[in-house]
Amino acid sequence: MTAGPKSAEDLLLRILRRELSRGPRKSGLLVPIGDDAALWRPRRGYQTILTCDWFLEGTHFLPDRHPPRLVGRKSLARAVSDVAAMGGMPRCFLLSLGLPSARTGRWLEEFARGLADAAEEFGCPAAGGDTTRREDILINMTVVGECRAGRAVLRSGARPGDAVLVTGRLGEAAYGLRLLRETKRPDYDDRRLGRHLDPAPRLAAGAWLAERRLATAMMDLSDGLSTDLARLCAASGVGARIEAGELPRVRVAGGEAREELRLALDGGDDYELLFTVAAKKLRRIPRAIAGTPLTRIGRITAGRKILIERGGFSTELPRRGWDPFRWDRRGPVG
Amino acid sequence: MTAGPKSAEDLLLRILRRELSRGPRKSGLLVPIGDDAALWRPRRGYQTILTCDWFLEGTHFLPDRHPPRLVGRKSLARAVSDVAAMGGMPRCFLLSLGLPSARTGRWLEEFARGLADAAEEFGCPAAGGDTTRREDILINMTVVGECRAGRAVLRSGARPGDAVLVTGRLGEAAYGLRLLRETKRPDYDDRRLGRHLDPAPRLAAGAWLAERRLATAMMDLSDGLSTDLARLCAASGVGARIEAGELPRVRVAGGEAREELRLALDGGDDYELLFTVAAKKLRRIPRAIAGTPLTRIGRITAGRKILIERGGFSTELPRRGWDPFRWDRRGPVG
Repeated sequence: MTAGPKSAEDLLLRILRRELSRGPRKSGLLVPIGDDAALWRPRRGYQTILTCDWFLEGTHFLPDRHPPRLVGRKSLARAVSDVAAMGGMPRCFLLSLGLPSARTGRWLEEFARGLADAAEEFGCPAAGGDTTRREDILINMTVVGECRAGRAVLRSGARPGDAVLVTGRLGEAAYGLRLLRETKRPDYDDRRLGRHLDPAPRLAAGAWLAERRLATAMMDLSDGLSTDLARLCAASGVGARIEAGELPRVRVAGGEAREELRLALDGGDDYELLFTVAAKKLRRIPRAIAGTPLTRIGRITAGRKILIERGGFSTELPRRGWDPFRWDRRGPVG
Repeated sequence: MTAGPKSAEDLLLRILRRELSRGPRKSGLLVPIGDDAALWRPRRGYQTILTCDWFLEGTHFLPDRHPPRLVGRKSLARAVSDVAAMGGMPRCFLLSLGLPSARTGRWLEEFARGLADAAEEFGCPAAGGDTTRREDILINMTVVGECRAGRAVLRSGARPGDAVLVTGRLGEAAYGLRLLRETKRPDYDDRRLGRHLDPAPRLAAGAWLAERRLATAMMDLSDGLSTDLARLCAASGVGARIEAGELPRVRVAGGEAREELRLALDGGDDYELLFTVAAKKLRRIPRAIAGTPLTRIGRITAGRKILIERGGFSTELPRRGWDPFRWDRRGPVG
């Protein structure tokens, strides 16, 4: 982002800089917002984690349903979740923002405030970015993180016999999204709606597991367990057997067990962690880390199939999670 | 980007991975495309440069005028230019891509090929990214670079008395864009059109100046000299006096000198370097670096104004470069 007093773009940048420059220079940022690029000092003995994520009007959020403050928070939380999934901690972020002229006032201020709050919470200040005018709100978030050399947990390390575990409860965000879409006056205090609107990246759990070398493979659940588990297994060259009865899942008022199971298997946007642990290390896994429960949901197999066991029968688990290229005209929120 | 064989998104990622995985793992990439995030090893004694750039259909390029191969090249070149402007060298990039379903075939293959060529040329392989379906083509490019600790050149170091210099020739890209928009069958071999379609980031010149601590301030010319010089001066708390007669500028067939000057002052997209050098070090600046000419165009002043001298008169230079929020309905190429 650039300095200078006169252009309309510079005025917009002034709002962003004011909101995003809170607190002292930390996280190794030597030159934050205001030059051609940011300058950052990596720590000795650490490796750098790099990730970026789209957050787009119509595809990922709707301006009339998603308050700008929460758009700011979630756009950062999703990218930070990728750092958690590697077992690292976030260090700084770059924001790319495309905005209609009508959003450069109050919408932008609230967005920037929510983003700044989340940045403070995650220990991940703004390093820079790019802005442009556009008819839809376009957000792209790059997060830079770090982990101690050799401690990052990849998707490719799962081995037959490993236990499969997840953090938290699955399907809540997908059900929260349904509440948001189908309820005239959604209850913004509903915990399930909160999981959709304001997800918490599992930084403490991811770093705890990575530091102790307890996870053999790990990823975050962004597109739904049925899709993401298949990805972890493909990267590791293994299969898995999931026990339906063990899945920690959303509670749906008056809902059928089948519906709750479907949400837990295919609902995206939870940003919980999916990870595997060698059988002999399983006793070292606690029930919860920093208040987030950990649940064993199955095991890794040598065969490449992803199976789910229900009432003594096992069937293949179809991938029914979120795939942007399978949606016809609308995104998940459109 | 994610591994796994089945979804439409995964098929698209397969094209990207095939094209972008050329050559050995270099540039310190430990985990490139295929996990939750990329893992990268910074060099000891170096600092990390971080930058990102939009490249959007309708705003920055038109699919019927800009060949996909060149869209791939330019989307990377623009972000790499920010690294050149700090005096660093690029190390890897992250690609965020939003694509209509109709572009996931041949367009994507050619785009990825052009991008891979540029990545090889710049020594900057793909580290990862994010993809989604979208009605317009959306590109966001994050580039990670490095420079030796303490050698980065910022915008804020210009001091009164410093000479102001530029690389290359200004206004060519803006004139090339005009040829592209106004000519029925544009001559893609025209050098000026080439400057718009396929700009070359000035990596060698930027690094040469930074290594020798010869530049007191530096930035790249993306929005036009009149806008960007004002930004450099604002960041440094100084002004400048530019000599119109010294500006290395585009040649326009049958064009007036006034038109050529306007293009050199206000035309964006050149990606040449603008930099300042202390008067006593000016004799150490060569006429060219790696074939790119360097030209002294004026000097830094203590007063905050940006003045231009023409025929013995000096007037204030208005900012008339590219400002996305001043365009009414159309971008620079729309």
